[in-house]
Amino acid sequence: MAQKPSIPKGTRDFSPAEMARRNYIFSTIREVFGLYGFQQIETPAMENLSTLMGKYGDEGDKLLFKILNSGDFLKGVSPEQIAEGASNRLAGALCEKGLRYDLTVPFARFVVMHRAELNMPFKRYQIQPVWRADRPQKGRYREFYQCDADVVGSDSLLCETDLLQLVDDVFARLGIRIVIKLNNRKVLSGIAEVIGAPEKIVDITVAIDKIDKIGLDAVKAELIERGLSAEAVEAVVPIITLSGTNAERLDALETLLASSPTGLEGVRELRFVMDTTAALGLRAVLELDVSLARGLNYYTGTIIEVKAADVAIGSITGGGRYDNLTGVFGAPGLSGVGISFGADRIYDVLNTLDLYPASLSSSVKVMFANLGEQEAMASLRLIKEVRAAGISAELYPEAAKMKKQMSRADALAVPFVAIIGSDELARREVTLKDMTSGTQTAVGFDDFVSTLANA
Amino acid sequence: MAQKPSIPKGTRDFSPAEMARRNYIFSTIREVFGLYGFQQIETPAMENLSTLMGKYGDEGDKLLFKILNSGDFLKGVSPEQIAEGASNRLAGALCEKGLRYDLTVPFARFVVMHRAELNMPFKRYQIQPVWRADRPQKGRYREFYQCDADVVGSDSLLCETDLLQLVDDVFARLGIRIVIKLNNRKVLSGIAEVIGAPEKIVDITVAIDKIDKIGLDAVKAELIERGLSAEAVEAVVPIITLSGTNAERLDALETLLASSPTGLEGVRELRFVMDTTAALGLRAVLELDVSLARGLNYYTGTIIEVKAADVAIGSITGGGRYDNLTGVFGAPGLSGVGISFGADRIYDVLNTLDLYPASLSSSVKVMFANLGEQEAMASLRLIKEVRAAGISAELYPEAAKMKKQMSRADALAVPFVAIIGSDELARREVTLKDMTSGTQTAVGFDDFVSTLANA
Repeated sequence: MAQKPSIPKGTRDFSPAEMARRNYIFSTIREVFGLYGFQQIETPAMENLSTLMGKYGDEGDKLLFKILNSGDFLKGVSPEQIAEGASNRLAGALCEKGLRYDLTVPFARFVVMHRAELNMPFKRYQIQPVWRADRPQKGRYREFYQCDADVVGSDSLLCETDLLQLVDDVFARLGIRIVIKLNNRKVLSGIAEVIGAPEKIVDITVAIDKIDKIGLDAVKAELIERGLSAEAVEAVVPIITLSGTNAERLDALETLLASSPTGLEGVRELRFVMDTTAALGLRAVLELDVSLARGLNYYTGTIIEVKAADVAIGSITGGGRYDNLTGVFGAPGLSGVGISFGADRIYDVLNTLDLYPASLSSSVKVMFANLGEQEAMASLRLIKEVRAAGISAELYPEAAKMKKQMSRADALAVPFVAIIGSDELARREVTLKDMTSGTQTAVGFDDFVSTLANA
Repeated sequence: MAQKPSIPKGTRDFSPAEMARRNYIFSTIREVFGLYGFQQIETPAMENLSTLMGKYGDEGDKLLFKILNSGDFLKGVSPEQIAEGASNRLAGALCEKGLRYDLTVPFARFVVMHRAELNMPFKRYQIQPVWRADRPQKGRYREFYQCDADVVGSDSLLCETDLLQLVDDVFARLGIRIVIKLNNRKVLSGIAEVIGAPEKIVDITVAIDKIDKIGLDAVKAELIERGLSAEAVEAVVPIITLSGTNAERLDALETLLASSPTGLEGVRELRFVMDTTAALGLRAVLELDVSLARGLNYYTGTIIEVKAADVAIGSITGGGRYDNLTGVFGAPGLSGVGISFGADRIYDVLNTLDLYPASLSSSVKVMFANLGEQEAMASLRLIKEVRAAGISAELYPEAAKMKKQMSRADALAVPFVAIIGSDELARREVTLKDMTSGTQTAVGFDDFVSTLANA
């Protein structure tokens, strides 16, 4: 029986027009990744649940899509397990595989499995979809692409410098003006140390991360609520309200964190990355921001966040350094630094600012109208030449009414329509219609390809 | 605790070297699709099981990967359902979604859902992975890419002609010599009719499909076994042992199928496609083959199969015409014709014949050695210029021993290594080493980009 079809909530179909725009973003990023020496890998959509579980916290585990074991999936599941009715535990018995939740854990798994073949430092990029059983909402999907580039096997801060250049190049090519915010996890640790509350680092960073949204007074109140002493809160104020140039902020931070070796190391790292970046030049605005605390459970050094200067949409790219990517898979000691481009948000920014190139089209340069069997064969012969010259072309497959054929050309925004009727065929000519200007020109068969190439 | 990681059986990681080769295949196919006016779409990896189930036969239903419902997946499942222990029925209660099994059913679903926005004929291509819970074996994977191009909304046989040109172009670009085999479902129906066993069409085609493998006598024996009369078997022999040129075979077939209007229609269609293809010219060998019976449950007209002329590996591309793609989703009346490239087998053919371009590399053109902080900064300045000129370049991130740095360049097959030591820095020169010839040249900073561009 016929069904009215739909797709799972939180997933999307991409039409040709959307694909043309998405491909523009992906190929821009891919090209820059290549210029910087990053090499592409791909990993399977399905990973063993043992690879995925426990890597994203309890909340993340719940958001994993699990794949029912094939065949008799109840074999080996005891009636007691079922009767117990605890979905979470039963899922482990019913499912061995899950869909990847991000590209980082599969990358770590890849590095450990293939370490003998990899040349360190290993610079990889990966552009693939990931899946999360999140509650779908505006701008949040259950299937979306991640675009990640990482360097592992080097703790040189020049990797950070190079990644900032890469980010700058990608957004310059896309025409998006950006602000890059920089912080360092060691600075955050240092702050917690100098105010005498090292164990409160998470509470402190969660609170100060909100300063832009809720303001200083509310942050102070929240810090008190989270158990900090009034004294500690007062000590943190000058740090999170740093102002002035980046150099002035770094100097102030160095003074404020003087009693914390970790904090000073963070300042030194920030200074190196900012100095080398300034020396090379950057189109983007680079801003030291100690309230930046993304990926706190994960990053151990540099933290990077990119915002669009002209659209209020949150972070469009982020990254940072992690010291132990592969430790959880039994291969400790690999430091890495990576960056992840948010393709969906970049898509929205380009739409909002109307920054897609005008030429972006997924359709052909010329459509040949179909005026009958003989005429169509003559058209196909010319089309063959046109395509051999690297120009896209198609024939309307049926000798339909001209109005219908032209409406296809309009709908697909085809720039040129070529018409070979019986008169044209006799004269070995094509009537070439420029769909933008509406002008029509007679072009001889032999001149057609070169005329079109220059049109 | 550290785990030794692995990936699910039947799935694969792709290394940078493999990705470079795969991308070469995909981008060749994608470029030709574009030249022919096919537009890319993407659909979600997950489809509702109601979309997928019942479309691939009972065997196919079993091979669908099903996704466990999120949250409390036991809610709504009665204890009786569970106690019954019938995995198949229970799966329906536990899972609403599955991974796509091919690109055809999602495409049909897409066409029905988006019909109002689509301009007919709709020419789409789609290059995405599909998943099947098949028993993994050599050359058969549980995750693999399909590359499909289809025209729907036209029953013009010129679509077939155009697709054959497209196939010819793809394999010419890849350098693979091919044989294209052509048949028509109506001819198969005609054969069953004229031998007086129209209800036996499946048995007949299954048997004659094996003629290349098991020979004529064995096919005759099998036909008897499948319940055909000796008379019918003798009647089928001249049809399945046609010889001579395509034109001679078509003439003979026309005579043999004279009593079947359906069969004659099939001959007429084959003749049109072969004549127009011959008129346009084809590099590939085109061969009428009435034993070709792929996709019998599916194709209603033209059937296409492509084999590599120089490697025995089975079909590397296939396709055909279907008259009712979208009927199952409540939108009857759309005829279509499509082609599907087998990327994994094409990969194997290119490997076997060693046909990959020598220049295929996913690494940089020049690696700068790192001889210290000052030297590295000078290198990064030059690298910035090199990349701005569209040439890939990287800096070794640490001032490691030269031997270690050079071994990276060797391992990645980097064609040029650039060295800026303290002497070079003082002279504003780069020592440029050609890794193929081993020669070293001193190049001034200002000439470096142009020298490299021409190297």
